[in-house]
Amino acid sequence: MNLKKVSLAVAFFGLTLGGLYGQTLKSPDGKFQMDFSLKNGTPYYQLKYNGKVVVEESKLGLRLFKDNNIQFASEINKTEGNENDLNQGFSKVSEKRDTKNESWQPVMGEKKSYINNYNELTVNLHQDKQDRTIAIKFRLFNDGLGFRYEFPQQKNLNYFVIKEEDSEIDLPSDMKAWWIVGDYDTQEYQYQTSKISEIAAKWAGAVEQNASQFPIKNTVQTPLILKKEGKEPLYVDLGEAALINYPASHLEVDSQNYKFKTHLTPDAQGAKGYIQTPFNTPWRTIIVSPTAAGILDSKMIFNLNEPTEYKDTSWIKPTKYMGVWWEMIIGKSQWAYSTEDNVHLGKTDFSKLTPNGKHAANNTKVREYIDFAAKNGFDGLLIEGWNVGWEDWFGHSKEDVFDFVTPYPDFDIAALNDYAHSKGIKLIMHHETSGSTVNYERWLDPAFKLMNKYGYDAVKTGYVGNIIPRGEHHYSQWTNNHYLHVAKKAADYKIMVNSHESVRPTGLNRTYPNWIAAEAARGTEYDAFGGNNADHTTILPFTRQMGGPMDYTPGIFQTKMDYYFPGDKRMVKTTLAKQLALYVTMYSPLQMAADLPENYAKHMDAFQFIKDVAVDWDDTKILDAEPGDYLHIARKAKGKDEWYVGGITDENKREFTVDLSFLDKGKKYEAVIYEDGKDADYDTNPQSYHIYKKTVTSATKIPVKLARSGGYAISLKAVK
Amino acid sequence: MNLKKVSLAVAFFGLTLGGLYGQTLKSPDGKFQMDFSLKNGTPYYQLKYNGKVVVEESKLGLRLFKDNNIQFASEINKTEGNENDLNQGFSKVSEKRDTKNESWQPVMGEKKSYINNYNELTVNLHQDKQDRTIAIKFRLFNDGLGFRYEFPQQKNLNYFVIKEEDSEIDLPSDMKAWWIVGDYDTQEYQYQTSKISEIAAKWAGAVEQNASQFPIKNTVQTPLILKKEGKEPLYVDLGEAALINYPASHLEVDSQNYKFKTHLTPDAQGAKGYIQTPFNTPWRTIIVSPTAAGILDSKMIFNLNEPTEYKDTSWIKPTKYMGVWWEMIIGKSQWAYSTEDNVHLGKTDFSKLTPNGKHAANNTKVREYIDFAAKNGFDGLLIEGWNVGWEDWFGHSKEDVFDFVTPYPDFDIAALNDYAHSKGIKLIMHHETSGSTVNYERWLDPAFKLMNKYGYDAVKTGYVGNIIPRGEHHYSQWTNNHYLHVAKKAADYKIMVNSHESVRPTGLNRTYPNWIAAEAARGTEYDAFGGNNADHTTILPFTRQMGGPMDYTPGIFQTKMDYYFPGDKRMVKTTLAKQLALYVTMYSPLQMAADLPENYAKHMDAFQFIKDVAVDWDDTKILDAEPGDYLHIARKAKGKDEWYVGGITDENKREFTVDLSFLDKGKKYEAVIYEDGKDADYDTNPQSYHIYKKTVTSATKIPVKLARSGGYAISLKAVK
Repeated sequence: MNLKKVSLAVAFFGLTLGGLYGQTLKSPDGKFQMDFSLKNGTPYYQLKYNGKVVVEESKLGLRLFKDNNIQFASEINKTEGNENDLNQGFSKVSEKRDTKNESWQPVMGEKKSYINNYNELTVNLHQDKQDRTIAIKFRLFNDGLGFRYEFPQQKNLNYFVIKEEDSEIDLPSDMKAWWIVGDYDTQEYQYQTSKISEIAAKWAGAVEQNASQFPIKNTVQTPLILKKEGKEPLYVDLGEAALINYPASHLEVDSQNYKFKTHLTPDAQGAKGYIQTPFNTPWRTIIVSPTAAGILDSKMIFNLNEPTEYKDTSWIKPTKYMGVWWEMIIGKSQWAYSTEDNVHLGKTDFSKLTPNGKHAANNTKVREYIDFAAKNGFDGLLIEGWNVGWEDWFGHSKEDVFDFVTPYPDFDIAALNDYAHSKGIKLIMHHETSGSTVNYERWLDPAFKLMNKYGYDAVKTGYVGNIIPRGEHHYSQWTNNHYLHVAKKAADYKIMVNSHESVRPTGLNRTYPNWIAAEAARGTEYDAFGGNNADHTTILPFTRQMGGPMDYTPGIFQTKMDYYFPGDKRMVKTTLAKQLALYVTMYSPLQMAADLPENYAKHMDAFQFIKDVAVDWDDTKILDAEPGDYLHIARKAKGKDEWYVGGITDENKREFTVDLSFLDKGKKYEAVIYEDGKDADYDTNPQSYHIYKKTVTSATKIPVKLARSGGYAISLKAVK
Repeated sequence: MNLKKVSLAVAFFGLTLGGLYGQTLKSPDGKFQMDFSLKNGTPYYQLKYNGKVVVEESKLGLRLFKDNNIQFASEINKTEGNENDLNQGFSKVSEKRDTKNESWQPVMGEKKSYINNYNELTVNLHQDKQDRTIAIKFRLFNDGLGFRYEFPQQKNLNYFVIKEEDSEIDLPSDMKAWWIVGDYDTQEYQYQTSKISEIAAKWAGAVEQNASQFPIKNTVQTPLILKKEGKEPLYVDLGEAALINYPASHLEVDSQNYKFKTHLTPDAQGAKGYIQTPFNTPWRTIIVSPTAAGILDSKMIFNLNEPTEYKDTSWIKPTKYMGVWWEMIIGKSQWAYSTEDNVHLGKTDFSKLTPNGKHAANNTKVREYIDFAAKNGFDGLLIEGWNVGWEDWFGHSKEDVFDFVTPYPDFDIAALNDYAHSKGIKLIMHHETSGSTVNYERWLDPAFKLMNKYGYDAVKTGYVGNIIPRGEHHYSQWTNNHYLHVAKKAADYKIMVNSHESVRPTGLNRTYPNWIAAEAARGTEYDAFGGNNADHTTILPFTRQMGGPMDYTPGIFQTKMDYYFPGDKRMVKTTLAKQLALYVTMYSPLQMAADLPENYAKHMDAFQFIKDVAVDWDDTKILDAEPGDYLHIARKAKGKDEWYVGGITDENKREFTVDLSFLDKGKKYEAVIYEDGKDADYDTNPQSYHIYKKTVTSATKIPVKLARSGGYAISLKAVK
């Protein structure tokens, strides 16, 4: 007999007998129902969709340390009894209900406005013994549930230290999951596809090497996309919203019972959050839809974030950019200037060092990039390796790695910015911290002043390697606060931030819209390092991108490293046409054309799509989608009568018919279709593509054939 | 048979047979001899004074972690083998000798100039197997030995992480020790007096509660004063010089073998130093003298520091100050403004809170203090509790405790500074960090700008409570770097720093003279908390003060707390006259008159000495001294023909004759003698004192009687 089923039966039996569910909350459209109950003083919730259980009765609560004097990580395993925990001994004292139906306009987004429509239930719970009150707030939308813990300021709960948050999500069946390994320091894992019941067995094999990593056994990361297969499929997306002053959460997997539980990122002492009341935790989110497209349509995570605090957002702008970058990633050039391997900030005279002859960020090369980017209408040019310190920036737990203000001898910061501005583009700053957050904070003001002085308005930050303060993790409360500190301070200087190796976004760009994008997942660079799977970009929109834009850096036309280094087997597993499609499927208001100018120059006809495509949108239609398989999206350019369509597939060939019914009725559009060539194949013939034009209307249907890991892109401009 | 003696015999036997000592170094006066040897690839040294062994053959070396990826504290106990250690497998490749005899002038000091006279031996050692070279540098002065490890930049030793430094100091006999418990987070322990052999048994009993502490079993702190008693007494003072970018060291005690070994302060991960070559460790110092006065005369620790990096030091000035402080320490007033116990920086509107009615730093009271301090010729007035955040500043591991720029509603920062300046004194800033170093660093620039704006030129910093970044300690490498970062940044703003709860000074005020003083030991405030022993101030000059000035905050005239709170048993265990003496015996160019104006007003005749006494000196004579018993010092005021003499005793009455032979021959001086009254006693009659005047010459001898924990002070001004 299935143990899972036994416990289920007991739960329902209890329900029937005892009438335990005190509170019921329904979504505005009535399709969702959330039931809250207290059982022996412990809070539980259950979620139904169309009358069927989506999340079984699941426990809520937190465990706390007795006091704030955590000394070392080992303490986390100490048994302290549950006297101090916030997971038992509760009685319900009151409830409060609210409802909201509004729309709001993101500074930049996938649509002009987002609808925020929910019914809310706040349950106030009291622990008699400890005389403490907490609240659990539930918001039920038409696309799922969000809940969080709220801690009012009170005599017996002013300050506490979290040992663990134990929010359970108990699923009724063994769903299919697209998952990556839970880790305190990296999100750059390859996706695994398996049943929940298989995760435990597959977990260890899914751990790959990373520059900084701390994999946590049998946990997976959020957002996590799940699918109940069968006649009535259901998609469930587990995530997190509004991660502020709190550690990022992973999901512990109970493979036998198809149950997940939050697992927070600890600090150097093993503690998981230092809280001062009043305080609200981030939201735990459960997005539910019968279609995969419905998941992508959900803006629940953004709705659960607060409106922006910024009064003026006019300086925050969508940006299409190129970069002196890919040539270092593939190993053709270097970030470092010299042949040294041990340099001292403020002491080493870099002008006296022997140049290594491979430094990309030099005056000549940067001017060439500026020329190409400017000629092709880009907004910006990222330059990495412009500043001193790259000789020994990584792997030494070195604190004072970079000063963010001193250019290498061959990088004339004033002249190059002048040159770029004369051509109508801006240089994009690069601040690699090497994980040394404290050093970065010491330099923030002078670094941002330098940017203001020379006219930079955007910075790409990086956190490669172990975090300093040592023992902190990339996703611990302290480091999460650091990222936000940087974003806020950047806003003081009207600077946009694109953070790499930072914590996964949880919709914070609604509140802090200058934090326009992040990496926080395995990006295109991994293709140069060892390859992403062909289905990688069909999964990311359901996971990493649910919380905000990703700087995925698409646009690789020369996918074979053999081109640069004869015999080199590395490759980007994609056709050229699929790379074009990514500009539509991978939403970001900051979008890079990552390849070298020389590679674009050979395919200017295809490059035209990258030049044309918008990066900020008035509308988005998910035409069809299935995680791990394919994705077809149409988007309407902000403020223009132009649409762009992108479609991609995994390692399998596919056919699809693009139904243009989303176009305005009666209008004519000139369509340019960029599709895989007949013989295109990501492995054998990635650069085979076919471009043709066609006048179309909303009645037109365009058939497309996608090669293995192929794709297509269509631009549609209204004919006047 | 004594095991100790056996091992000694073996060592000497080895010496005789093998001629192991390759290198011999003598002090300039020939009295000291240091012998270096390699035994089976491990370095040893031995120190003799006047032909007798002072330090027996003692091992040198360091243990390293295999790589930089230390994850948690538990790793420190892992056995890794010694392949990577720097303590074995050495062969000597070369030696280098040097000598120096110079004098230099401190910006402020006990004498106008200090003599720096030593012979130096650098032994270059090579590990063949690892192909690494290190050096050990010995400097032998006429007052003892300093040595350090030097790590040249090289292919196989660019970066490493220290597991422990194992510098041994093996003493030949069971000396008397005045010691405090070794601790990663506090130095504020009461001194213990015992034989070395008794430390292990007495250690646990010597651990007292502190706001932040991490006592390390069977370790003691440096500087440590030791005495070989008997017919030919010898004093040995073990310390540390030039602690930069390295953790502070404690001494592990081998009570059976009278042996000490360095024990460094770990970071949150248990690692003890992240090193990039080239790098030199701090110096280990062994000061030796047949007299206790000789120990106090030693300026070896300062000599082992580098000359100042500052070009202009004219803004660094000796400062005598009062403070709105003691009344909070004793509990009469409060730092906090309101009755709240949970406030949020940047959110709480303090003007809306209910005042607690005990806030000392208010406009009225501060003006009264200004009036009194100005009228009596003080340079500055410290005001604590001026800024918002004190309501919940301590014990909550709260990161954003203070912003260092926002005054409480009843503190008019502009008006009060104007008022003070109009009276010729400066307000002294107070920056309590509550241990949250990262928060303080975020606010450093605005805080120092605020000081410049209002004309503050000195700041007292504080680090009460556990350090944030959490898991770091008060004396770990990271935090030591923080203190220096603050001092250097303060110098950019021409601000002097007086740091409390910071790491013990190691002579760094030679290099960074604006770091004019520190607390870093148990100060007068402990008298209000629970009492210092009567011998406390007779020991501090041999320990804490060997490395630099201490802001001890003497001058308590009202020693009985019963005066404020009837029935309160707390007391400062001292006579009033002893408090005067401390201005001479406790050297600091920053000197406080800590008591309340009302208490001074009652004893203006005695207060005259505090008004008169200098705080910066052209000369210092240690007239007589014995740690734990008594101390008599005469100092000549900087640039004046004035001398000040101070003498103190422990819990025992004493008599002493002050021989004024240090005065210029043939000149007449007017002496004012402040001595204990005939019936004076720290317990029964502390405020009994007697003042008289006398014209004296260098031939005069002044007899003084010191009460139990009593003292005397003499001012001597040349008659023109």
